[in-house]
Amino acid sequence: MSKQIVTISREFGSGGRSVGRRVAELLDVPYYDKELVKQVAVETGFDEKFIEQEGEYASPWQSLLSYAFAGGGSGPRQHMNGLSTADFLWVIQCRVILELADKGPCVIVGRCADYILRERADVLNVFIHAPIPHRADRVVRLYGESDLAPEKRLEEKDKRRRAYYKHYADREWGMSQNYHLSLDASLVGIERCAQMILDVARDPGQGQ
Amino acid sequence: MSKQIVTISREFGSGGRSVGRRVAELLDVPYYDKELVKQVAVETGFDEKFIEQEGEYASPWQSLLSYAFAGGGSGPRQHMNGLSTADFLWVIQCRVILELADKGPCVIVGRCADYILRERADVLNVFIHAPIPHRADRVVRLYGESDLAPEKRLEEKDKRRRAYYKHYADREWGMSQNYHLSLDASLVGIERCAQMILDVARDPGQGQ
Repeated sequence: MSKQIVTISREFGSGGRSVGRRVAELLDVPYYDKELVKQVAVETGFDEKFIEQEGEYASPWQSLLSYAFAGGGSGPRQHMNGLSTADFLWVIQCRVILELADKGPCVIVGRCADYILRERADVLNVFIHAPIPHRADRVVRLYGESDLAPEKRLEEKDKRRRAYYKHYADREWGMSQNYHLSLDASLVGIERCAQMILDVARDPGQGQ
Repeated sequence: MSKQIVTISREFGSGGRSVGRRVAELLDVPYYDKELVKQVAVETGFDEKFIEQEGEYASPWQSLLSYAFAGGGSGPRQHMNGLSTADFLWVIQCRVILELADKGPCVIVGRCADYILRERADVLNVFIHAPIPHRADRVVRLYGESDLAPEKRLEEKDKRRRAYYKHYADREWGMSQNYHLSLDASLVGIERCAQMILDVARDPGQGQ
């Protein structure tokens, strides 16, 4: 069975999103990243910005605090059936991802999609990473300077993604065994990463 | 700079050794696995069988006990300068691997070679893994049945490799970030794993 759905997990600044976009282009299938956030926003009534930070970067307890301080909790909270903000968003995010996967072939970047779709046999899970100096250069080039040193930004973002994945998937983020392919994009290159993924997605199971 | 040395770390039964042998064949370079054990045996006076178990499977405290009970500690111990058996073998193993790498292009399977050669820029580090059912089938097919259920054998071997790596390299065994490529051989297949490694080894740095 070919792998119709490709999930891409990635270290911040590694080029994982570019790889994902290129794979979607090559396979001629939809690419979900921001679109997923929009869908969750529609279903929950939360701000896109808030969901984006929550769903990927924040650890659950931080999101609760940040939403409370942002004056949240009035509108959307009424639908939450006693769940915390973070857990409520997680439940909706799972539903959105499962529905998107049911619609047909696609590429999904981030948001624990590998874990959420673990029961499906047609999913190829990829992890894209790169050494810190490479990512620091790339982050400054793409997003510009910020008050925080780029190495510090990477460390913070990775730490939050790791904590979020550990909390909801109860797995180690970046552990090879959770992915079919884990690639160092600084060495392999964005284009070759995409070609490798394409090749395996189209013709998996050569080892069986 | 091309990657002249390929190190392969692997889960037991995943096919990592077959991948390593095939890469060596394709690159037409020496393949070190058992040869490495022989060299350590020559330099230390220990049995090859003992070194093989020690260097890969046993956690350090177990090796000490097993060697003591096997009546070891008379001949080789005199050269050990107060090191434990495990630490002494580690020191020699590091020297042998560094010397082999200095000799020229090669493929080295196991024995923390990725960590031991971390200062060299011409090394490509690979991790080969596969899901437990695939490995269990493979182990029974290749090595036959044993008293222990194949799943239990896998678990034991992986646990020991993980502990050994953690102890000497102070890193997580199988964590994507420690390798340039991590591949699920059950999906990618032995031959395609070898081809991917060959491609990146010959022409790395496309992402730079």
